[in-house]
Amino acid sequence: MIPRYTRPKMAAIWEPENKFRIWFEIEAHACDAQAKLGVIPEAAAKAVWERGQFEVARIDAIEAEVKHDVIAFLTNLAEYVGDEARFVHQGMTSSDVLDTCLNVQLVQAADLLLQDLDELLAALEKRAFEHKMTVCMGRSHGIHAEPVTMGLKFASFHAEFQRNRDRLLAAREDIATCAISGAVGTFANVDPFVEEHVAEKLGLKPEPISTQVIPRDRHAMFFSVLGVIASSIERLATEVRHLQRTEVREAEEFFSKGQKGSSAMPHKRNPVLTENLTGLARMVRSYALPAMENVALWHERDISHSSVERYIGPDATVTLDFALARLTNVVANLVVYEDAIDRNLNQMGGLVFSQRVLLALTQKGVSREDSYSLVQRNAMKVWNGEGNLQDLLKTDPEVSAKMSAEEVDELFDLGYHTKHVDTIFKRVFGRSE
Amino acid sequence: MIPRYTRPKMAAIWEPENKFRIWFEIEAHACDAQAKLGVIPEAAAKAVWERGQFEVARIDAIEAEVKHDVIAFLTNLAEYVGDEARFVHQGMTSSDVLDTCLNVQLVQAADLLLQDLDELLAALEKRAFEHKMTVCMGRSHGIHAEPVTMGLKFASFHAEFQRNRDRLLAAREDIATCAISGAVGTFANVDPFVEEHVAEKLGLKPEPISTQVIPRDRHAMFFSVLGVIASSIERLATEVRHLQRTEVREAEEFFSKGQKGSSAMPHKRNPVLTENLTGLARMVRSYALPAMENVALWHERDISHSSVERYIGPDATVTLDFALARLTNVVANLVVYEDAIDRNLNQMGGLVFSQRVLLALTQKGVSREDSYSLVQRNAMKVWNGEGNLQDLLKTDPEVSAKMSAEEVDELFDLGYHTKHVDTIFKRVFGRSE
Amino acid sequence: MIPRYTRPKMAAIWEPENKFRIWFEIEAHACDAQAKLGVIPEAAAKAVWERGQFEVARIDAIEAEVKHDVIAFLTNLAEYVGDEARFVHQGMTSSDVLDTCLNVQLVQAADLLLQDLDELLAALEKRAFEHKMTVCMGRSHGIHAEPVTMGLKFASFHAEFQRNRDRLLAAREDIATCAISGAVGTFANVDPFVEEHVAEKLGLKPEPISTQVIPRDRHAMFFSVLGVIASSIERLATEVRHLQRTEVREAEEFFSKGQKGSSAMPHKRNPVLTENLTGLARMVRSYALPAMENVALWHERDISHSSVERYIGPDATVTLDFALARLTNVVANLVVYEDAIDRNLNQMGGLVFSQRVLLALTQKGVSREDSYSLVQRNAMKVWNGEGNLQDLLKTDPEVSAKMSAEEVDELFDLGYHTKHVDTIFKRVFGRSE
Amino acid sequence: MIPRYTRPKMAAIWEPENKFRIWFEIEAHACDAQAKLGVIPEAAAKAVWERGQFEVARIDAIEAEVKHDVIAFLTNLAEYVGDEARFVHQGMTSSDVLDTCLNVQLVQAADLLLQDLDELLAALEKRAFEHKMTVCMGRSHGIHAEPVTMGLKFASFHAEFQRNRDRLLAAREDIATCAISGAVGTFANVDPFVEEHVAEKLGLKPEPISTQVIPRDRHAMFFSVLGVIASSIERLATEVRHLQRTEVREAEEFFSKGQKGSSAMPHKRNPVLTENLTGLARMVRSYALPAMENVALWHERDISHSSVERYIGPDATVTLDFALARLTNVVANLVVYEDAIDRNLNQMGGLVFSQRVLLALTQKGVSREDSYSLVQRNAMKVWNGEGNLQDLLKTDPEVSAKMSAEEVDELFDLGYHTKHVDTIFKRVFGRSE
Repeated sequence: MIPRYTRPKMAAIWEPENKFRIWFEIEAHACDAQAKLGVIPEAAAKAVWERGQFEVARIDAIEAEVKHDVIAFLTNLAEYVGDEARFVHQGMTSSDVLDTCLNVQLVQAADLLLQDLDELLAALEKRAFEHKMTVCMGRSHGIHAEPVTMGLKFASFHAEFQRNRDRLLAAREDIATCAISGAVGTFANVDPFVEEHVAEKLGLKPEPISTQVIPRDRHAMFFSVLGVIASSIERLATEVRHLQRTEVREAEEFFSKGQKGSSAMPHKRNPVLTENLTGLARMVRSYALPAMENVALWHERDISHSSVERYIGPDATVTLDFALARLTNVVANLVVYEDAIDRNLNQMGGLVFSQRVLLALTQKGVSREDSYSLVQRNAMKVWNGEGNLQDLLKTDPEVSAKMSAEEVDELFDLGYHTKHVDTIFKRVFGRSE
Repeated sequence: MIPRYTRPKMAAIWEPENKFRIWFEIEAHACDAQAKLGVIPEAAAKAVWERGQFEVARIDAIEAEVKHDVIAFLTNLAEYVGDEARFVHQGMTSSDVLDTCLNVQLVQAADLLLQDLDELLAALEKRAFEHKMTVCMGRSHGIHAEPVTMGLKFASFHAEFQRNRDRLLAAREDIATCAISGAVGTFANVDPFVEEHVAEKLGLKPEPISTQVIPRDRHAMFFSVLGVIASSIERLATEVRHLQRTEVREAEEFFSKGQKGSSAMPHKRNPVLTENLTGLARMVRSYALPAMENVALWHERDISHSSVERYIGPDATVTLDFALARLTNVVANLVVYEDAIDRNLNQMGGLVFSQRVLLALTQKGVSREDSYSLVQRNAMKVWNGEGNLQDLLKTDPEVSAKMSAEEVDELFDLGYHTKHVDTIFKRVFGRSE
Repeated sequence: MIPRYTRPKMAAIWEPENKFRIWFEIEAHACDAQAKLGVIPEAAAKAVWERGQFEVARIDAIEAEVKHDVIAFLTNLAEYVGDEARFVHQGMTSSDVLDTCLNVQLVQAADLLLQDLDELLAALEKRAFEHKMTVCMGRSHGIHAEPVTMGLKFASFHAEFQRNRDRLLAAREDIATCAISGAVGTFANVDPFVEEHVAEKLGLKPEPISTQVIPRDRHAMFFSVLGVIASSIERLATEVRHLQRTEVREAEEFFSKGQKGSSAMPHKRNPVLTENLTGLARMVRSYALPAMENVALWHERDISHSSVERYIGPDATVTLDFALARLTNVVANLVVYEDAIDRNLNQMGGLVFSQRVLLALTQKGVSREDSYSLVQRNAMKVWNGEGNLQDLLKTDPEVSAKMSAEEVDELFDLGYHTKHVDTIFKRVFGRSE
Repeated sequence: MIPRYTRPKMAAIWEPENKFRIWFEIEAHACDAQAKLGVIPEAAAKAVWERGQFEVARIDAIEAEVKHDVIAFLTNLAEYVGDEARFVHQGMTSSDVLDTCLNVQLVQAADLLLQDLDELLAALEKRAFEHKMTVCMGRSHGIHAEPVTMGLKFASFHAEFQRNRDRLLAAREDIATCAISGAVGTFANVDPFVEEHVAEKLGLKPEPISTQVIPRDRHAMFFSVLGVIASSIERLATEVRHLQRTEVREAEEFFSKGQKGSSAMPHKRNPVLTENLTGLARMVRSYALPAMENVALWHERDISHSSVERYIGPDATVTLDFALARLTNVVANLVVYEDAIDRNLNQMGGLVFSQRVLLALTQKGVSREDSYSLVQRNAMKVWNGEGNLQDLLKTDPEVSAKMSAEEVDELFDLGYHTKHVDTIFKRVFGRSE
């Protein structure tokens, strides 16, 4: 966790305080279940809830000695609970606590991320409708193609992040399991009822079959989904960086008063937020791989996954949380320069209408190949600065033979390109107004 | 595609023949839709279906000249269709054809992979029930822990691959979209009805909003899921490799007559299939990353994703198909050595019952800490070769003070560890018989 | 290997013909050494060289039966050599042949790649000197910064690829080893002299200590270096893609006559070569990871690395070879538009001189903070279209108080920015003319 | 940085204190150079050294306002230096400071890592000589192959880490550059002499050509080398984990008194250190990829690399430092069980001598194929528990026809396998005693 890329709510999930709180709840709920089964006295379960406490510093001190975190926690808990503490953790193995806790933390993280996504989606929707009909140049290969609208750009990202929301929701379900199944997952020393009870209390599903641990394919999937979301962040960040280029300058990250762009060049306004997001996306993406390598644990488990998760658990979720919030901020406050948008749109001498001309010629009976040649030879003149396409076509005798000047003029109409924007908005947002 | 890791059905999906066949269908269905809209003559649409053909070698020859694959295809198609060919591809852009085609191929690939998974699941289920009660040593950290059964091992993999099946099904849905939306996705030159019609005919959903291309977050997700499945393959492969170790030898890959294990050492039977699967898993996993990097295309598209997909489209699906089939074969024919399983189970002088003793002592009123010490001091003697746990406990006066010899003997019972196997099987398979 | 991204020389390295040729040489040289040691008859070694042949199809047929490639090769070889063939492969293990062969292939591949790099370096040097003084806008964050020259851009890439050449040379040395050390690397059945002899004949160094295999950290390093080179390719490709943007258009990939940019938009000239290179870079980079995962083989070896190497051996080298050649072609034929370069340079109303003004003001005794504010307030006016910096400064009373109009004018001089270009060229090329 | 995987010396490199100390030195040395050039007053340079100070908390406070770290630092510095501070940072750009500082930090980190490697190499050498002739089973594919010695195992890792040391030294050289070249690398506002002076004072080389930043291929190479080293750590960790398996138990991590292996199973001694190292290796390896993605910055730079480096700079070096130290500890204190080694060596009924028998038979004139069959049919009997190879061969009539019982007995000799150990040790360590 890099402080500058960390927001407090997500960070709190990974604090020892939260972790031990979850451990406590797992143990205490398990005691309830064991008491119901008659395995331990009801009074013991009650005592755990009533007197059970822990202190992070004390646990650390004990762990330094016994070199085992769960034993350290249980020892500290026993200091508060007293004699009845011997009934705690009955038949359980450390991983029952650790793995169930990790999944609770990941579910908590997913819930924050879902909220982040909702805020991003709201910002995208707002900007999409605001600029639904702001016609701007569409570009493929970085080259002017045909007109789109700024609203369509936002809508495209909205649809993408909506898909990411669905994926994250599925990944949250995937990870929301609880295992209290003992040393090798056989329930030898603990009845499956305990697992079912704890799962229910914590809002999880029982893990149908575990080894000593909850299977890591679940986590691999979870972190892969975070990697995909990060990749979408990179796409939006890249779009903004392109739009803010000096030569394009159709949009700009909000530049607060007092902010300095460069220690050397006072005129500069750099898209530093989206550049930063590009880098953060690289990091979140990279965490998917060790998560996948974690799957192939030996036999009923080895502990190689654990150190990996100490890094990527916090780092992936905290970084993604920060990135989504920063992105939402960029989207919500993005300055859109309609003048520049218009200037760029008209820069190419009407070349963007070339395909429409091509189609019109084929409708007039010209073969596709001949139409292509006709359009291309005029397009090349425009490209070389010899005029605009509309005028050149009217003076090309082979074109005139097929189309009147009026017919040519009718083809050069931006409305032609925006006639289905409402249809697309309905698909994406369920509404076009 | 490495021939030795390639099966013909999956390879055929990526052959030019299949690709152009899909292109043809996209174009022909699009003509039908355009005819219904009155944009092109019905006779033209009919002509495409009736006379439309293509020849791979001819397309290649044309492409060598025009350096554009879709134009080459259309030119070749026109050679068969004749004059009406000028109505083909009306208002469409190359990516409409290329991207929809790629998704059709990925859906075809997913369908084969789902079938592979079904066969693997069937093999795992069969072996799981066969060895439901074959008690064997469970191991954490590679160290003997407590007994499990071979059936539970198979069941654990069954549950994991069942999850992978669900994920692949979701990824298949994610990728099953069709875009016929023109040069920048605005439907300027083609009515959305064409997209809807083609999508329906090909069993796809219309892409709600596309740029020039279908958004690549869909593909990133798809290849990530393949990477997760590969990681699960690695886990099962690793399990077999461990079980086949000389010192363990509880199971062995089927070794066909005439097969030579080593050019130098004739006695060797190596787990080469599962070692091979370990390597293949590394490859399939690695493809997830360039797929994620493909997401951030510039503006309404750049073509950097294309070369990546030429590699990972075939390589990831063909390799995973081969790996799943090989794994199914390994599972179905795995030789299980029950003698060795028993020998290993008894190797540790009863140490595997240590936790049960610990719990029994706490039930007798000994504190958890004291119980732990009592068990550990006897366990350490066993570890150092000074006897078996059962006998040592009976002669430990502090233990005898709490438990009779009979009570000690009752604790050393394998049935204790298998009593919930049926419960787990019901969770995994919905049945225990 | 994707045919369209494959050049014949590099592909030939990975053909069975080349592989078996190397195997033959390893075996034949080993026979010579064994004969010198008196382990096998000299006549046998001679027979191998004289009568030794192999036929790829025949080897495949044998392998289909014995399921072991080296045994299949030796069997086929024996069919030509006759009875003395029993002396071949004496004391060796398959990996002695396979691993030494792989390293020979990687050395051959490295030699081709070094040649590719030399050609790229030559092209970059040529273009660098051609445009040494073509002043163009330098951009940080995509925003106009201060002037550079096109020649400096080329020189920067030259220095980077020179470093890559050094790295590849080191990686070539790292991989250029030979192991003939028997089943577990102990030379139990083969004298170390055999290894030394074969190594010398093949231009390799003896592997100081091997297990059954040559250690895979060497290969991990090799493929990592290819990944770094690919990343540099991506940087240059990205530069070209940016320069070719419609709004920038300072340079363009060569566009051959007859080439079609888009099936729909005839005016388009897309940077498809460099976009393609961007994708290829993603692939080559991705191969570094499985190569690293290959290092941790079990004990004296497992064979999990082998399938990985069947993919990445050819794929990484063939793709990088193609990419370097394509990049050289792009560089050599890049069309540079000096008009556009000038236009962009002047687009910002002199803002690019802001830092120089800042420094000049501090030289006049204004504090850094005040200078910054003075410059920034005028820069912001330029940015908002209210004039150019040179004129605005002259009319700003606080500036006038410190600098005369002449002094201001002197600051706006491009030569100021190019005065050290020769120094830099000398550093990079060892010459400035 | 995860506290439990962090050692203080490496962590200190990444503390703000160290960073600002380096910034200060860069600025102060630059002032010296500027003073020598006459650009700034000598008194100013002197004032910086004499009065120059900084305070981390104060810098943070200023940065919160100006949102630019270098400006914040300079402002704080000016608070101490006073009026002459206006001469600081003359003609420089933030990246001159940031990038040179990062490289200094990476060089410092490399120096610590080199020291770690030296300690690991020393431990490996000590254990290698201690167990030079401890004959143990060599295993390929996890299957018993032929004898090696424990010393050879250690020597193999020594050679590998020696290579890694060489690679790290090269990477250190690669990264040890200094850039003071101004806003876009042209030295427009700062003479190259400043760069040369600062480089020399900091023990760096001048960057031959920079953009606004030092080119990131250097860093990509650096982090790739760390990834390769991590992969070698994983290989050694995996070896220990295998040797510690219950069924093998030839070696064990040192288990301190009072340490608890499992909260549930008191007998357990788990290879938790090496499992942990396996996970850490995954992390360090994963950082190579974002480092490679950082290379392709836009034009003369964008800042996407920066956030990545805030993570991987500390995380990769701190984690690797910790891992190397832990590994050294594991190696130095590894408990080797010679009894178990012997037991395993004899477990296979002499099968490990099979190749030697094969060779002896061919020496007696039997064809390779017939020898193979002869040996394999006896080997299979051993494998099936029908006796040991030595006895079976003596009673096989086809063998007896070629070899006397005495000749057979002579083949079963461990010394045969260790006769070249000294040769190998000389290659690796330059000495065999």
